Amino acid sequence: MNIPEYCQELGLKAQAASRALAAVSGAKRDEALRAIAAAIRANAETLKTENAKDLEAGEANGLSSSMLDRLKIDDAGVEKIAKAVEEVAAQTDPLGAVLEGKVLPNGIKLQKLRVPIGVVLIIFESRPNVTSDAAALCLKSGNACVLRGGKEAVHSNLAIAKCVQEGLATAGLDPNVVQLVETTDRAAVGELLRQDETIDLCIPRGGKGLIRAVVEQAHIPVIKHYNGICHTYVDGDCDEQMAIDLCVNGKTQRTGVCNSTETILIHKNAVINGLAAKICEALVAKNCEIRGCEQIQALCKKAKLATDEDWGEEYLDLIVSIKIVDSIGDAVAHINKWGSKHTDAIVTKNISAAEKFTKLVDTANAFVNCSTRFSDGGEYGLGAEIGISTDKLHSRGPMGAADLTTYKWVAYGDGQMRG
Amino acid sequence: MNIPEYCQELGLKAQAASRALAAVSGAKRDEALRAIAAAIRANAETLKTENAKDLEAGEANGLSSSMLDRLKIDDAGVEKIAKAVEEVAAQTDPLGAVLEGKVLPNGIKLQKLRVPIGVVLIIFESRPNVTSDAAALCLKSGNACVLRGGKEAVHSNLAIAKCVQEGLATAGLDPNVVQLVETTDRAAVGELLRQDETIDLCIPRGGKGLIRAVVEQAHIPVIKHYNGICHTYVDGDCDEQMAIDLCVNGKTQRTGVCNSTETILIHKNAVINGLAAKICEALVAKNCEIRGCEQIQALCKKAKLATDEDWGEEYLDLIVSIKIVDSIGDAVAHINKWGSKHTDAIVTKNISAAEKFTKLVDTANAFVNCSTRFSDGGEYGLGAEIGISTDKLHSRGPMGAADLTTYKWVAYGDGQMRG
Repeated sequence: MNIPEYCQELGLKAQAASRALAAVSGAKRDEALRAIAAAIRANAETLKTENAKDLEAGEANGLSSSMLDRLKIDDAGVEKIAKAVEEVAAQTDPLGAVLEGKVLPNGIKLQKLRVPIGVVLIIFESRPNVTSDAAALCLKSGNACVLRGGKEAVHSNLAIAKCVQEGLATAGLDPNVVQLVETTDRAAVGELLRQDETIDLCIPRGGKGLIRAVVEQAHIPVIKHYNGICHTYVDGDCDEQMAIDLCVNGKTQRTGVCNSTETILIHKNAVINGLAAKICEALVAKNCEIRGCEQIQALCKKAKLATDEDWGEEYLDLIVSIKIVDSIGDAVAHINKWGSKHTDAIVTKNISAAEKFTKLVDTANAFVNCSTRFSDGGEYGLGAEIGISTDKLHSRGPMGAADLTTYKWVAYGDGQMRG
Repeated sequence: MNIPEYCQELGLKAQAASRALAAVSGAKRDEALRAIAAAIRANAETLKTENAKDLEAGEANGLSSSMLDRLKIDDAGVEKIAKAVEEVAAQTDPLGAVLEGKVLPNGIKLQKLRVPIGVVLIIFESRPNVTSDAAALCLKSGNACVLRGGKEAVHSNLAIAKCVQEGLATAGLDPNVVQLVETTDRAAVGELLRQDETIDLCIPRGGKGLIRAVVEQAHIPVIKHYNGICHTYVDGDCDEQMAIDLCVNGKTQRTGVCNSTETILIHKNAVINGLAAKICEALVAKNCEIRGCEQIQALCKKAKLATDEDWGEEYLDLIVSIKIVDSIGDAVAHINKWGSKHTDAIVTKNISAAEKFTKLVDTANAFVNCSTRFSDGGEYGLGAEIGISTDKLHSRGPMGAADLTTYKWVAYGDGQMRG
């Protein structure tokens, strides 16, 4: 395979498909989405068989339990994947919405209309459901997409992509609306990121290595979906049981996901009143490894000493770092220094502490008295999400179909000239 | 001057200033803006004297008439600059707006709040008013900014920046909220574009060379404010006088600006009925040089033959390229191939031609029956504009203060855990 030629061709085909898609109605796009969901259900056995190949290879290659968790597709998984596509179909069409409209003093009628971005390149790692989620969201929003999955999910991705193609064909749409990159050669990523004439946006989802490689090579705009170094800060004035519950839920309810809590910050008052010790106890009871500051070590025998590396680490596992801080200001400073601008929560009874925290922490999702695990497009009512943006431009936090659109100013006059 | 150290320090100072700015009220920011406008008026003589130095150097260096037009500040220019800052002050505060808000089924109160981006780097070329316009829009939207102007306007920019500093001081704000890069060394651009730890966004405004250099070197997100290769397409079915007027106004009302028409496309029917010849005549009467296709040459003796380079050229001068096309589809294809996704207009009486044109032309501003010159933040009611984005991400077309913001999801719960 000649990779530069192959990638250029992918881009050209996608651009042509995206232009044709501009003439396709929302009803037709939804029909294709429902056909994709049906194809996924009809091919459940194939999906599981192909997924088993990836799981076997993953175990042989020593993938971590959280990686295998992300990779696995069982019966419930197939249904979840199909349902996510149907949920996207059921959403309101984001296209054509009039975002603003006015008549200018000179009589020109000006409107800001929502339109597709064009061609979106999604580069992702282990989760195969991204193949159908991304395809569905791009199709819903009128974009063509080029999908590049990780090699550890290659069989699952190809099987899902086949269902997507089947659904597009059933609805009579151009199959090039959704293209899965067929090679897992790394050189293809660099080549795709050079197709700025045909690809309008790249969304990378994955670990630091992937994101760094994309940012360094990209000649097209990128919205990063980076790691989640999420914090839960336990304020001095808080409900004790709520603090324990939210720390435990944030960390342990599911570990292989970007919105789980990786670092817990605890106000020093909670050392004196014993809450810090209870939080550690509750986490240890869930078999969670604790890496703490010296004060944490003093009150929890099982805690290891945290190094600076721990504060910048996304464990994606039953491990948590914990630090005692002197004030809410210190908590904010710690998060702004070490966090990944993803999701950060405060547990407090104090209204001004809540306001200070949500205002000063530079994060996409600032939570008061709830688990960091709620940072999710589905929970926010956006339907399936393309990911969670840790960037500030265009979209921030969970991204749904509407985040894959841009706008166009359309003006109607009757001969106005500028004087 | 150690340029890498200087640039790093600029970024750090800007970041600190932007964090302090988070606590400054909208009323205080507006007070500072009014103080800046007052300082500009009070220093009118100095501004003109410093501007004269740039004009003299520009003439000596052979700048084109359009470049000198962009550079010049006379009494009316000073007043225009001051007034633009006051107009920004008079706008509604974009910050804190609740863009969306809902109560989730689990009781979590979720809001999408408008917040500043952080630190914005503006890299621009000859127009000195960008110094105050950019400073005003960044301050209005709660951002710190680093401004890097072109060396041909260095005296004017420094003089305006001094007024900005004076205004900030009068209002008691950190002067580092607005920093003008003091060196015109090109190496500083590359260094600034590496400050991804402190600078959140770069907006380059200028010609191809500048934009290309920025995109290639940037490690931070960029919103390009590229050139304006704007088209006016004269449909077969149109009001003749309106077509002549809009072609002449689009091209000649002001030539040194990005929203002037650079290429006129004319439907072949307008050759037969004589309209094409009349349009050429009217442009020649305005001393406009015509570079046309062979058909245009046949009907206008003064027309030179256009080459492919003409279709991709932003003249910024009294020169226009003109081409006869067979259909609206050909016009759309020409614009999508050669245009810069800036502003493109159709002159037509036909409603379906208007809809086809506005839907299929991939442009930030699609106009029907009005001059391309209306593509402007002021005309759109956005106040002073930071520029006109030719990108599709985050902001498209004229960008005002609200385009310099992002959002943050803020959620209030009462102990919700994910199950």
